[in-house]
Amino acid sequence: MSIQQIQAVADALRSAPYDADASVGQQRDIFEQSLSRPVPDGVALTDTTLGSRPALEVAVAASTGPAVVLYLHGGGYMVGSARTGATLAWELAGRVNGNAYSLDYRLAPEHPFPAALDDAVAAYRDLLSRGHRPENLVIAGDSAGGGLTVATLLALRAAGDPLPASAVVFSPWVDLTFTGDSMDTKHGVDPLFTRDRIGAYAPGYLAGRDPAEPLVSPVFADLAGLPPLLVQVGSAEVLLDDATRLTARAAAGDVRVSLEAWPGLTHVFQGTALPLDEAGEALDSAGRFLRAAFAHDQRGNAAFAHDHE
Amino acid sequence: MSIQQIQAVADALRSAPYDADASVGQQRDIFEQSLSRPVPDGVALTDTTLGSRPALEVAVAASTGPAVVLYLHGGGYMVGSARTGATLAWELAGRVNGNAYSLDYRLAPEHPFPAALDDAVAAYRDLLSRGHRPENLVIAGDSAGGGLTVATLLALRAAGDPLPASAVVFSPWVDLTFTGDSMDTKHGVDPLFTRDRIGAYAPGYLAGRDPAEPLVSPVFADLAGLPPLLVQVGSAEVLLDDATRLTARAAAGDVRVSLEAWPGLTHVFQGTALPLDEAGEALDSAGRFLRAAFAHDQRGNAAFAHDHE
Repeated sequence: MSIQQIQAVADALRSAPYDADASVGQQRDIFEQSLSRPVPDGVALTDTTLGSRPALEVAVAASTGPAVVLYLHGGGYMVGSARTGATLAWELAGRVNGNAYSLDYRLAPEHPFPAALDDAVAAYRDLLSRGHRPENLVIAGDSAGGGLTVATLLALRAAGDPLPASAVVFSPWVDLTFTGDSMDTKHGVDPLFTRDRIGAYAPGYLAGRDPAEPLVSPVFADLAGLPPLLVQVGSAEVLLDDATRLTARAAAGDVRVSLEAWPGLTHVFQGTALPLDEAGEALDSAGRFLRAAFAHDQRGNAAFAHDHE
Repeated sequence: MSIQQIQAVADALRSAPYDADASVGQQRDIFEQSLSRPVPDGVALTDTTLGSRPALEVAVAASTGPAVVLYLHGGGYMVGSARTGATLAWELAGRVNGNAYSLDYRLAPEHPFPAALDDAVAAYRDLLSRGHRPENLVIAGDSAGGGLTVATLLALRAAGDPLPASAVVFSPWVDLTFTGDSMDTKHGVDPLFTRDRIGAYAPGYLAGRDPAEPLVSPVFADLAGLPPLLVQVGSAEVLLDDATRLTARAAAGDVRVSLEAWPGLTHVFQGTALPLDEAGEALDSAGRFLRAAFAHDQRGNAAFAHDHE
């Protein structure tokens, strides 16, 4: 069934409501409606605060372990919310026998860079301050939230904070200069994005800032010292090369990094509401990666350490 | 223990006997002695023939399934043998509940390209002719054998042969033009290879041929249509970017591809004779990838199909 499933997802993306002239508020409403999946049995969402920002606490009834996922939603730094991010938060949390928080970081254009980054860093530190141990934490995100995930790790590393056990990013947007070959080679293949359409998100977040700054575009950062990183991407994405270049950059910096490229699949396919075998398989694979990283970290992070000298 | 293990492996590589002035025969003897691991209990090696070449049949006593791994050893297309490749052949075969063959393909400089490729293609076809179904087959290899693995898939694809369920390559050598950044950035980090030292293997295999030919350097090939591919590499390798670029190229061609980069680890660390936790972990991960590909292929290869139109 999977080729039909893949086609159905692509068709749904092609026909997704999109209006380049819609106001920011309208775009947020559309995104919220199309990406907020019903909360399944065994999951409870509770309003809370992380740092000084609203967040959703995502409690998985079946979970018995100490793992906590800090989830950073996608939406071009302009749309999306803790609620739209909650789906992938509970999907990951359940697979690591843990729970999650989905963060309402501040959005552009009202709040350009580094507002979202500051919020994500503050949220992570709040989790530490509540007694969660870094070796039980994961940061994860999709699309812009994937870029924000990597930027958050970089900011924490620079500040000397203890880093989480690992991170996972789905279809990360990590190059706001749009220099990946796939911007062209996947033009027309990607049913959701073009360079122009994703490019429309950048100016509000940048607010005149250099798009090549490493904390804005982590594909240009020195990634040495980051915890184990899993990158998943579909091959039918203009963002494909954001993922492959981020992976190469991480590997060059001695990061334990895995990339999974899924043929024919589309932007953040893991979060689709439609039946898609690969969504579950990719999430299961992410769960295995995260559990392995937890196991390593709990024996002292030796095997995943980047400094082998 | 793992940082100490990693260091021990690197030290062993640094002190490995190497003599640039040794004859080809002497180099083959040294390689044979240093890489032929004792056959463990439960594994039996039997001399046989595949195509018209000698090979070792690698029988895993505990295996009960139909999976067969065709293993292509490393050694710069100049050294190595079915016996040196047998270690990783039995390690993989055991993890897919199957058996393996390790091939003595013809070596340079006596037999330049495409002799090795012709032998690998003929060996694969011989397995088909013996009744092994392509959905139960895997091709795998390390270093030059990893490049040969990808070239073999390309040749089989071009000829219209049924392709194996998947392939796995360890530290593949897929760019005989040596254009990866890691040739420079990992110079002195890689305890085994430099551009010059690995470069010494190229002329004999090329015999004047263009090193950018896709069947010689598959990093320049169109990889569309290949079966699922797993690439593993250490980050302390001048060949790191062979792996990252091969992966990017495969992803661009809608191949189901996974890359695993292991920090601080060295060329074909999976085959080290020294204690190394990551060797077993990487092989276990490879086993999971191969088993997933078998499962997909047996339901019609739908999910891993590259043609999603």
